[in-house]
Amino acid sequence: MGRTNGNWDGWLAAEEERHLAEFFELLRIPSVSALTERHADVERAAAWVADRLRQAGVPEVEVLPTGGKPLVWGRWRVAADQPTVLIYAHYDVQPPDPLALWATPPFEPAIRDGRIYARGAADDKGGLFQTIMATEALARTSGEPPVNLVFFFEGEEEIGSPSVAPFVRAEQERLACDYVLSADGLMWGPNAPALTVSTKGMAACEIHLRTASGDLHSGLYGASVANAAQAMAHLIASLHTPNGRVAVAGFYDRVREPTAEERAEIAAVPFDEEAYRASVGAPALWGEPEYTPLERNWLRPTLDVNGLWSGFQGSGKKTVTPSEAHAKITCRLVPEQDPAEIVDLIARHVAAHCPTGAVASVERQPGDARPFAIRRDNPALVTAGEVLRRLYGKDPLIIRLGGTLPIAEVFQRELGAEMVFFAWGMPDANMHAPNEWFRLEDFRLGARAYCELLTRLAR
Amino acid sequence: MGRTNGNWDGWLAAEEERHLAEFFELLRIPSVSALTERHADVERAAAWVADRLRQAGVPEVEVLPTGGKPLVWGRWRVAADQPTVLIYAHYDVQPPDPLALWATPPFEPAIRDGRIYARGAADDKGGLFQTIMATEALARTSGEPPVNLVFFFEGEEEIGSPSVAPFVRAEQERLACDYVLSADGLMWGPNAPALTVSTKGMAACEIHLRTASGDLHSGLYGASVANAAQAMAHLIASLHTPNGRVAVAGFYDRVREPTAEERAEIAAVPFDEEAYRASVGAPALWGEPEYTPLERNWLRPTLDVNGLWSGFQGSGKKTVTPSEAHAKITCRLVPEQDPAEIVDLIARHVAAHCPTGAVASVERQPGDARPFAIRRDNPALVTAGEVLRRLYGKDPLIIRLGGTLPIAEVFQRELGAEMVFFAWGMPDANMHAPNEWFRLEDFRLGARAYCELLTRLAR
Repeated sequence: MGRTNGNWDGWLAAEEERHLAEFFELLRIPSVSALTERHADVERAAAWVADRLRQAGVPEVEVLPTGGKPLVWGRWRVAADQPTVLIYAHYDVQPPDPLALWATPPFEPAIRDGRIYARGAADDKGGLFQTIMATEALARTSGEPPVNLVFFFEGEEEIGSPSVAPFVRAEQERLACDYVLSADGLMWGPNAPALTVSTKGMAACEIHLRTASGDLHSGLYGASVANAAQAMAHLIASLHTPNGRVAVAGFYDRVREPTAEERAEIAAVPFDEEAYRASVGAPALWGEPEYTPLERNWLRPTLDVNGLWSGFQGSGKKTVTPSEAHAKITCRLVPEQDPAEIVDLIARHVAAHCPTGAVASVERQPGDARPFAIRRDNPALVTAGEVLRRLYGKDPLIIRLGGTLPIAEVFQRELGAEMVFFAWGMPDANMHAPNEWFRLEDFRLGARAYCELLTRLAR
Repeated sequence: MGRTNGNWDGWLAAEEERHLAEFFELLRIPSVSALTERHADVERAAAWVADRLRQAGVPEVEVLPTGGKPLVWGRWRVAADQPTVLIYAHYDVQPPDPLALWATPPFEPAIRDGRIYARGAADDKGGLFQTIMATEALARTSGEPPVNLVFFFEGEEEIGSPSVAPFVRAEQERLACDYVLSADGLMWGPNAPALTVSTKGMAACEIHLRTASGDLHSGLYGASVANAAQAMAHLIASLHTPNGRVAVAGFYDRVREPTAEERAEIAAVPFDEEAYRASVGAPALWGEPEYTPLERNWLRPTLDVNGLWSGFQGSGKKTVTPSEAHAKITCRLVPEQDPAEIVDLIARHVAAHCPTGAVASVERQPGDARPFAIRRDNPALVTAGEVLRRLYGKDPLIIRLGGTLPIAEVFQRELGAEMVFFAWGMPDANMHAPNEWFRLEDFRLGARAYCELLTRLAR
């Protein structure tokens, strides 16, 4: 282990009021990447973040064009024999609608009950600012950080990071690193530290089905020409068993059965199935009965119909035999599934199961993402676990994401560095919803944790 | 049999040019019931028809308000000991769009290749005018018609006859009759006279399915909360066997198996399956393999999904787990099926087959219609067959309609009289499409046929 704590802890405590005031400045900038009319605010946030990095002591800071929203890039090289840690975060936020549901305005931060309420407080300005605070604390108390740092703060995470993959591919020199830390992520709860060890991949396609050259009069043709809505229903129904297992041949071929250790890790995560069910108003949970809901969400690949339509949707009735039907499909993939291969399997299934009287085709859609999983012996992951263990006095939970973070896989593929999620979002923090919040206590804790993790990562 | 042919045949031949000119007058009135801006034309057509009935000698003629489009009613009582024949037709027409596809303007009748081209020529101004010509011919050549006549010419057939059932129920005295002849209907071909002996009934409902209180993030919930699109697909797929048989318990309980005689009647009807398939661009025909396509269309009840939708239909992808799905369903029924009972059976099926994690309900929709079938010994049907046999020198085909004509069942129920279709529309006459036509030869033939039929119906 390298240099240990100088006195960053004391320094952060002393500067807390100023840091909080600065954080509020950042929260006040409505950097909503999805709204064209907020583009100037997005640029203003980028400039603010860049200035703040410079103020923290980072010697190289640039606001770089990406073709989309600007990227705030920074670099602090301290020693060739020290590892380089890339810190990822995003400064853009979700739209605040519906405004009427906010207790206080989304871009007017307010503290209530130990929480900072504002759009972006948790996702992801809190995490972003924690890393700046930590960098500044290390610089002020030790002259410079203990490792080489690269900052990668993007401005389009909330619109799917369209510019990130090409940027990373093109700028490997600027981004070269040994470890990637993401300040965008989750703990499992206020007193439930967690390490995220995998996210799911994605494959997308559409099924187009046709039974005739145009919609037909059901009285003239309904009994003798296939109905596209019915044929599509049969086809979609063939994709799953009633239990929820995907029935596409080969779909699970590359999927490893969970080990007893993985199942034990997941069983150790507190999860209230009934509360989960009730929170979404589902009449019952659903899915492969051999797995618990968390196992399904974290370890099992899914095939999801996101949209389905055929025929007449207006009011009243129209006695038509629909001639076309369409379905939008995405799959959430687990290691070692391959998005392109999965779409091929679906196409083969559709060809084999297309009902009599119908023709169907599968159209590949953009948005492929490979699943991501970090090796358990990744030194940054191991060290992050040690830091959490020391700060909380307990072992961190091992969690996974059922969602897809293409960026983790992009960094892994392009830079050869696995992402370690080190972030203090809470699952119920209303990210993407009104009244988003971030714990005031975590605002401090996260900065201290970053100081400690970076210090421990030094040789 | 009563009075036989005076000399109507010669009289009709002599008046043909005038009749054709008058028919063109009627065709020039764009009486499109579906278009509000044509309402004055619909009223003008009603007035024209009423005047023309008076001119033919009908002593009682009225244009009656119905709440919707006016009804042209007429009555000619000739003798208490003669039967009363109600003649049904409609003077409204379909919209002419798309105009660009008409070879000559839809409301500027033109004769080409022995056909009269105009919107409404076949559906149903041709049939309507034939009955006026016949009435006039009988009156001029014999002083009065051989039977009592009631005319019922409606103006909203093309919008579903919303006012007809209440009108018929309220005006039983005006409409009292022994037989009903419909001048709206089909022959099977130019040299293929046909008697229509049944039409299908209709039941309508919607299925609403829900799996959660709102759409969900498929990464967080896709593996453990049921997907409404998938659940609806399973439910819809459960409604039919892959072969096309309806799988709703009890659906066929009241359905009689066709007799050998019925199957022979249908087999006698010239029908080119390959041409039928090719005409609609279907990759293959579909349906219960134990029956021929015509048997299915004419004798077998169907359950048709007219519309189906769930989740995201926009462009691009949205990784949502849909929480709602909807399906619109109509059934084409055969004797003795009951529309209300059929919806009950569907509701029972849906309750029994609703997938885990979903709740579904069935909402009854308006538009019920009972199936209609005429007794084969109905004297008007038997006599109509005799007339066709004499005019064509061959037995008429026995045909059926896969479609629904609620009016036939309304007259049967309210007036106790079964409808006999006696009309010269051709299946390929482009009714409801551009370049609608009516055979010039049939314009004369139908009028003569009506003279003969009415004469033979006299005691």
